[in-house]
Amino acid sequence: MIKILKNLLYLFTGKPAIPSGSSETLEMILNRRSCRSFSDAPISDSDINTILEAGRFAPSTVNLQTWSFITFTDAHWRETFGRPVPFKAPAAIVICADINRLQELMPEMLETPALNLSFAVFNAGLAAQNMTLAAEALGLRSVMLSETGRTGLLDFAFLREKLHLPAGVLPLTTLVIGHAESSLPGIPPRQPREAVVMETTYDNTSGSKLKDWFQQMFIGYKITHPLSSFDKQLEHYRSKMADAEHEIHKEFDKK
Amino acid sequence: MIKILKNLLYLFTGKPAIPSGSSETLEMILNRRSCRSFSDAPISDSDINTILEAGRFAPSTVNLQTWSFITFTDAHWRETFGRPVPFKAPAAIVICADINRLQELMPEMLETPALNLSFAVFNAGLAAQNMTLAAEALGLRSVMLSETGRTGLLDFAFLREKLHLPAGVLPLTTLVIGHAESSLPGIPPRQPREAVVMETTYDNTSGSKLKDWFQQMFIGYKITHPLSSFDKQLEHYRSKMADAEHEIHKEFDKK
Repeated sequence: MIKILKNLLYLFTGKPAIPSGSSETLEMILNRRSCRSFSDAPISDSDINTILEAGRFAPSTVNLQTWSFITFTDAHWRETFGRPVPFKAPAAIVICADINRLQELMPEMLETPALNLSFAVFNAGLAAQNMTLAAEALGLRSVMLSETGRTGLLDFAFLREKLHLPAGVLPLTTLVIGHAESSLPGIPPRQPREAVVMETTYDNTSGSKLKDWFQQMFIGYKITHPLSSFDKQLEHYRSKMADAEHEIHKEFDKK
Repeated sequence: MIKILKNLLYLFTGKPAIPSGSSETLEMILNRRSCRSFSDAPISDSDINTILEAGRFAPSTVNLQTWSFITFTDAHWRETFGRPVPFKAPAAIVICADINRLQELMPEMLETPALNLSFAVFNAGLAAQNMTLAAEALGLRSVMLSETGRTGLLDFAFLREKLHLPAGVLPLTTLVIGHAESSLPGIPPRQPREAVVMETTYDNTSGSKLKDWFQQMFIGYKITHPLSSFDKQLEHYRSKMADAEHEIHKEFDKK
């Protein structure tokens, strides 16, 4: 019981260790949180363009820029998906890992699809975080979705059909962007530093350092989803995960 | 010939479109460049810790934080690899996608390794870019390596042995960090916006928009590597790529 209370307390106090006197930029990077409630204030085209430029100028393996950004206004999203952008945000960008576009110029990409897709997925992550932070710097808020409203890799087959994605393109996440309606909730619990940060070699005891964190995640879920069954949610995920696994294998084995 | 000159010119002029009056943070995000020449000025432990916190507090799929950061001082790097950190930087962090640590708590991870590793690679990208930008905010410079000095995914088998990586851990890149020795070179050419940014659906003509960019990359390589053969470099990569492909398949097929 003391352990549960300790973990409940941690939920509201686990924060990054930021040195005093940090720059505004550093505070922004370390305190960014996902937003799931947007006001109906619109976003300017200029802001969307700046966010896309942040993606486009992200670093990437051998500067290959193995990503595609598919943009949506709310109206475009409704036309494509028959519903509003998740959390009623004014704009969304589907971020894809993409080796398709390069295959004509670099046919050797076809010989090692799993390697190239791995790099493409990593690079898309670099671009996605650059875009996320550019949105923050513009005073906007965002969230990256992998499933909510069928928006990411867990709905690979569905998105491939809706967005006409060719082979070599993985829809990883939807970056939903807008103005926050209210103040953001606390930072969800992070794994303890000693489980994640290792010196010189991999620490095989790291898994055993996660039990408190796992309980914090569970407590956090119960607080933020009081009416929902954790097991039911897990069952829902698992059926989608099996489908997505099948689709990913098809891409990684393609030659 | 005019086309070659045009592409040569583009090499020195292709810059992100930054709105005038942008914040310092936005300028930093959009103008960040990789650094390959470091001074011998040391980095404080506090700065390394702040960079690691930026990784640890990055967003991730369902907040699972599927990453590990293996840290090295120059002395530790020498002990492990028998040579200095690439580009003589004072510190390096090997950034790994990691589902190993979670498998005990979440055995369902074992059922869909390709999906979970894809998420893990993407999340590691989010963390890596957060760390890269935190380093910039601290006045440091960095570069992410995938091969130079056997530092990333192209040397998967070698790194697994050196760092004792268990199954489910992919060494994606080494973030090399330090103080820049001199001013940084120009921004390498980016693919044209119309090839990367798409509205509503995937643009199957995007590959045809890359020919100029491909020539720019080739010209840029010849300028920065005047004594090196592009074809020889490609041959070197290809043999490593075939090995890495094999290793990645083993992970993605593991059940």
